[in-house]
Amino acid sequence: MITVWGQSISGNCWKVAQILRSTGLPFTWVETSSHAGETRTPEFLTRNPLGQVPVVSLADGTVLTQSNAILAHFAEGTPFLPPPGLPRTRVLEWLFFEQYSHEPYVAVARNIIAYQKTRATQRDRLAVCWDKGAAAFDVMEHRLASHPWLTDVGPTIADLALFAYSHVADEGEFDLARWPGVSQWVMRVRGLPDLVPLR
Amino acid sequence: MITVWGQSISGNCWKVAQILRSTGLPFTWVETSSHAGETRTPEFLTRNPLGQVPVVSLADGTVLTQSNAILAHFAEGTPFLPPPGLPRTRVLEWLFFEQYSHEPYVAVARNIIAYQKTRATQRDRLAVCWDKGAAAFDVMEHRLASHPWLTDVGPTIADLALFAYSHVADEGEFDLARWPGVSQWVMRVRGLPDLVPLR
Repeated sequence: MITVWGQSISGNCWKVAQILRSTGLPFTWVETSSHAGETRTPEFLTRNPLGQVPVVSLADGTVLTQSNAILAHFAEGTPFLPPPGLPRTRVLEWLFFEQYSHEPYVAVARNIIAYQKTRATQRDRLAVCWDKGAAAFDVMEHRLASHPWLTDVGPTIADLALFAYSHVADEGEFDLARWPGVSQWVMRVRGLPDLVPLR
Repeated sequence: MITVWGQSISGNCWKVAQILRSTGLPFTWVETSSHAGETRTPEFLTRNPLGQVPVVSLADGTVLTQSNAILAHFAEGTPFLPPPGLPRTRVLEWLFFEQYSHEPYVAVARNIIAYQKTRATQRDRLAVCWDKGAAAFDVMEHRLASHPWLTDVGPTIADLALFAYSHVADEGEFDLARWPGVSQWVMRVRGLPDLVPLR
């Protein structure tokens, strides 16, 4: 049995649950709150010295970390990850974009406003998040204004990875109506079989 | 012929040049300075709407972005990227770690101190870079204190990606002597065939 240590409100953890749902693999979820320090206990750090969720344990005890690497691991051999070559490289481009140019702003704005509730003391950081997050949505709009999915081969883990924080970006006070292609793509991803959004 | 738009001092751009050297693919380098605004021209933005180097153009005109996706693209089918399965997932874990937990601190400290030369006005940001960058080196040390390479299959693009900013981290005032396993690994990577370090 696959075990997932994750935090239910986290988009990064959602990715793992979703690829397991999408590929039909049963799993056990162990709710683990980073806010409550549960990712910093000695036991947890033996699983992931970075002290981050999600963490996955396979049936043989093998431990996997890094949400987008976990997406690729479970998507291998399915339509969610095309075989090696240019289509796969396109998926990887979006996965690295997500972790470098999208999550650090779109997810962090949401965390500051909706979960840490520290907007009053983090105004400078929020301003950066809104500016850089908007730039990330601009790049997605550049693609999605004229294409149904982020890559040419249909829905892949690139779409799941970017959907994770895009579909709850309003909690970070991003108004997706500014990016109609992104808004329509969010609805399209919501319609995928077995897709269970954060909300 | 492969064309690379890159900035010579950039570790992210170095990765691309190095995987092309390591795999024996000839390429043309077009020096492109982000500091001088050359990644924000209308012509450049048609290649990469993110306005970032490196950018690669293949012989047929196909454009690739995102340094770690480019590493994976050219490493496919070589020993630098093991075939799908757990060994490949381990490589991907390190590649995402690099872009999320290492580069944003280790590369940024170097940029502030050595290139922007704005250390006096960015003291708070530098403090964060030193703290989070040290945490990233701690995670690398956890592995490298007892293993020669980041993954079990020998040198891969995971080692090239992490070497990029680790071997010049002193320019960001990280003292690698604190992490002896990392220091020895840096020397080991330097000894790879066709390896041309930034300095």
